[in-house]
Parts: sequence; C-alpha cells; structure tokens
Amino acid sequence: MTTYASAGVSLESATSLSSWLNPRVGGLFGGMVPASALKEYDHPVLVSSMDGIGTKVRLARRLGRFEGLGQDVVHHCVNDIAVHGAQPMFFLDYLAFHRLGEEIARRIVGSIADACASVGIALAGGETAEMPLVYREGELDVAGAIVGVVEQSEIIDGSSVTAGDVVLGLPSSGAHTNGYSLIQAIFTDADYERVMPGSGISLGEMLLLPHRCYASDIQELRGRVEVHGLAHITGGGIAGNLSRVIPDGLQAVIELPPWPTLFQRIHEHGIAREEMARVFNLGIGLVAVCRPNSSGLAGGEWQPIGYIRESRSERRVELGLS
Amino acid sequence: MTTYASAGVSLESATSLSSWLNPRVGGLFGGMVPASALKEYDHPVLVSSMDGIGTKVRLARRLGRFEGLGQDVVHHCVNDIAVHGAQPMFFLDYLAFHRLGEEIARRIVGSIADACASVGIALAGGETAEMPLVYREGELDVAGAIVGVVEQSEIIDGSSVTAGDVVLGLPSSGAHTNGYSLIQAIFTDADYERVMPGSGISLGEMLLLPHRCYASDIQELRGRVEVHGLAHITGGGIAGNLSRVIPDGLQAVIELPPWPTLFQRIHEHGIAREEMARVFNLGIGLVAVCRPNSSGLAGGEWQPIGYIRESRSERRVELGLS
Repeated sequence: MTTYASAGVSLESATSLSSWLNPRVGGLFGGMVPASALKEYDHPVLVSSMDGIGTKVRLARRLGRFEGLGQDVVHHCVNDIAVHGAQPMFFLDYLAFHRLGEEIARRIVGSIADACASVGIALAGGETAEMPLVYREGELDVAGAIVGVVEQSEIIDGSSVTAGDVVLGLPSSGAHTNGYSLIQAIFTDADYERVMPGSGISLGEMLLLPHRCYASDIQELRGRVEVHGLAHITGGGIAGNLSRVIPDGLQAVIELPPWPTLFQRIHEHGIAREEMARVFNLGIGLVAVCRPNSSGLAGGEWQPIGYIRESRSERRVELGLS
Repeated sequence: MTTYASAGVSLESATSLSSWLNPRVGGLFGGMVPASALKEYDHPVLVSSMDGIGTKVRLARRLGRFEGLGQDVVHHCVNDIAVHGAQPMFFLDYLAFHRLGEEIARRIVGSIADACASVGIALAGGETAEMPLVYREGELDVAGAIVGVVEQSEIIDGSSVTAGDVVLGLPSSGAHTNGYSLIQAIFTDADYERVMPGSGISLGEMLLLPHRCYASDIQELRGRVEVHGLAHITGGGIAGNLSRVIPDGLQAVIELPPWPTLFQRIHEHGIAREEMARVFNLGIGLVAVCRPNSSGLAGGEWQPIGYIRESRSERRVELGLS
C-alpha cells in the first residue's frame, strides 16, 4: 500500500471551478471538504455511490491509452447520483495494481483529477494498493466513490411516474463501462486497429471513448419539463435499469432506435439480441420519464423512445428490440 | 457486475443506532442519507477516506474465516477520519471477485453491515464486481469509503502540536490490515494452526483479529485532555504516520514498549527491525500528541511512549526500536 500522496499527484494543480474544489488532502488521513453550503438546504440529503469501471481498464492497458479512465469512473459515479437530482460534491478514487506502475498510476489519477475539475467537484482523496498475490500479472482495477447533495423535496426516484408519461432517451458515447469482458472475448488486436465505417476512428478508439456525463443534460431537461424518473443505463441494460424507477402497476413500453454501428458489430459476432439488451446500453445511456406538456418534450439530443401505461405484468419494462 | 441489492443483503435488518442509520438504498442508483443534522454545525467540514484491507482478505480466504473483514475495512476507515475529530456518518463498500461467490459475498457484506451498525453509521451502498480476467483464480478484493463530519474549528490536524507535548499510544489488536503480503510470504499452513504461547489462540486466528476501532477512545481522551494531534498507524508504521501530524521544527521522540509476541515471531523469521517498523504498527495502533496537565495524561489503556521537542532535523519522528 502507498499513501495517496506518494502516487505523486498534485491535487493543488486541479483547476478550481467550484466551492467543492478546495479540499485539504496532502498529508492527512482523511480528505476535508468544507460543506457550509449544505446549511442553505432545508433538508439536505447526501446521495452517494460506489462504482468500478470493470475490464474497460484492461482494454485501456492493452491499447496503452489511460487518459479516458478518469472520465469513465467519475462520470459513471456522477450519473448515478445525478439521476436522483443530486448535485455532486466530491469524489474518492481506488486504484489496485498487480505491481504499482508509477507512470500508469500518475496518468490514471491525473485523468481522474481532470475529470473531477471539469465537472466542478473535489477530489477528496483515494487509495492506491499493490497486491501481486491477488491481481493477475500486469492487471489493475479502478473504482471510486462519489458524494453529492439534494434537497429532500426535490429527490427524483420514480415515485411520481404515472400512466401517460413519455419516455425520452439520450445517446450514449458507446459501451460506456459495461460489457467489456464480453467485448474482449470477441475481438482480436487486429479488430481493434480496424477503422470503423463512417466514424474515422478505430474500433479500439471507439471502445475507449469515455463514459458520457449526463449531469448538465439532466439539469437542462428539468428546466423545461416535469421529470418524474431518471435511469442511468449500466449493467442490466435499459430494462434492468429503467425498471428501478417504474412504480407498481405501471409499465414502460420502449421501442429503441436502430443500434449504433458498435453494437451491430458486437451482435454480428453471435451475441443474441436478448443478451445484447441485458449487457449493453444499445446506444441509449440515459432514460428520462416525463410529464408531457404543450410545447413538446423532445429537444436537442433527447428523443422519444416510449411511454408509460398501466399494467398488471411483473415486467416493468417492455423492450422492443426490432 | 451485479447491483448491491442482488448480493442478497437486507440493509433494513441492521440495528438502528443513530440518525445516520436510515439510508434509502434498495433499487436506487445512489444511496441516500438524510443530513439535516449538518445544519446544526456552524461550519461543517465533510471528512472522507477510501481504504482497502489488502491481502488480509487472502489470509481470510485461506483460513475460511470472513467474519472479521467487515470490521477490518469499516474500522480502518472510521479511524482515518476519527483522527481528525470527525464523527463518521456513512460507508460504501467495494467488493471485486475473480468469480462472484454468492455465499462469500453475503458473509462479507453481512459483516460490513454489522460493523457499520455497531459504530452507528449507515451502509449507504456499494458495488460488487466479477472480473475473472483481472483477479487471480479464487481471489477477491475488499475496499470501502467513509464520510463523516467535523466542526471546522474542532479539526485535529497536528497544527497545534508544540514542544513539551506528551505522546501517548493505544494498543493495536494485532497487525490490523497492514503487512499481510509479507506475513503470507513467511508463514505456512502449519504455522497458522499452531497455538500462540500465552494467548490460547492459533497464529491464524491472531492474524485475523479485526482492526481495532479507536473512535470511542479518541472521544474519551478528548474529554479529559487537550489533544493536539492523532495518528492512525497503518502502512508506513509509527514513524511514517506520526510524522504526518508533526509541524516544521519539531520532532517526536518515541520509545516503544516491548513488541507483542506476534511481531516478535515475524521478526524471528528474518525481517529486519527497520523493515518491521516501516511495515507494522508493532503493537501501537493509535498515537496521540497531548498537552500535559496536572492530573497526568495516561489512563486506561493509554500509555506514554514519548514527547515532542524542538529539532532542526528533517526526521519528524525519532523511533527507538530497542
């Protein structure tokens, strides 16, 4: 084990973008984030999440590109609390290595610090561990925890979803951070180098595109319509995640737009449509359930993908895969 | 990846001991902890820490005893923020497996939930990952993040430490969660089964004694003397950790009591005294720097182990190992 500071990362160098961005970390046992702003809330609720980015790290190592991993883990965490209406405050990282590579640790923690700065939150601390007996040779794992805050009366949790609500979807930037064990069981090094038609980038580059951050999209949508439920589409796919915010007696009926090329390519390798839908976001990284109003709901990148109806079925989500 | 809920742990079953113990987790993307109590602080500062318990997990697996791992990771985290005077609020866990063993996951997360309940904090959520390509066969990793709060004016960080202060130590419960790669390079299965003289338990049982929680000891000490600095002794040993709270121009002079049998036994396997001091706590798990007063300082388990003097040396801690 090494202390966070010994990874050689200067937290002070991160650009200051918000009041949460001035933690004291260097030399301390715990990171400190001033939180007087919480006193302005009537009933502050702290919303937190722990997430890993799985074997996407392994693909990054294989292709020697670590720069996007910070956005992967930070955005994954930010999205998981933003879907409840929370404003992110600070982040802590966890890096574990077979053997600690100073250079790789520096690049990954640097990318985490950059990702925190760009979403305006503090990197409050972290842990870096070396465990040759636990990790396979050359392997590493990246995870993180986030903490944010929401006014209790403004929590979004799906409880206000009703029949007649419209379901909107926002594009993902690719597979985000799910399904990479499956992906790496399918493709070869030669596959990763091949340029994807119509994109100008290789399959490897496409697979390493960072997990998209939806915090500002959520804020924008809430500014113009009544949002009843939000689902971050991670492991479990659209049905598995959207069902978490659909109340008893209701069902979301979803018809997906055509799958992006990346998912078609994976599907062509013999992965069944049902398995594809269970593992991947299939091009939709965030789903919103909203009350329709006169001015219409879709706008910008948001596209209507379904609606809410009454149902006695135990299936909260009916997903059309055609 | 599986969701936290699918690990089969009923968070509702944890005994309610404090106001932080009622998070909403089930089915949500982020865990929610009501934090209106923060409004009672003048200038609340959130103190957080991320910690792993390293290869102690591997020894637990080898000996088939997972029950103490919850206390290991939770107490490690609690101590890291309690040394700054913070009151812990909630915890998030991270479990990563070669292959997800439902039974083992259940036992570990159950022990984490119990440890959180016993220190009066919420288990706000967590992540469980399965990565056969990253972890060696049968291996797993356990980490966690904690968040607590302290009134800004009451932060303990060593800045008030002065020459003439007395240094006290509290016993550890063993190696806590540091040095287990070294330990497992030394001992054999037969060694683990041998009963340790004077203890009535085997070496294996002694090595799996949970990381001691110092939160109440710190509270008790602060109630009767002026505490200037506190150090949680983890990787880096007494010198490496105590030096984090010794200001410029000062030095802590420490004379350790005789090492407990466990550390003597490790030392006998050819580990140099200097290496022992760098890796292990050597029987002292928490160090406090205090202002002496008329009624004396030591009490209960606290024992005087040194003092603070002025010094131009770059060594913040002079550790006598005799």
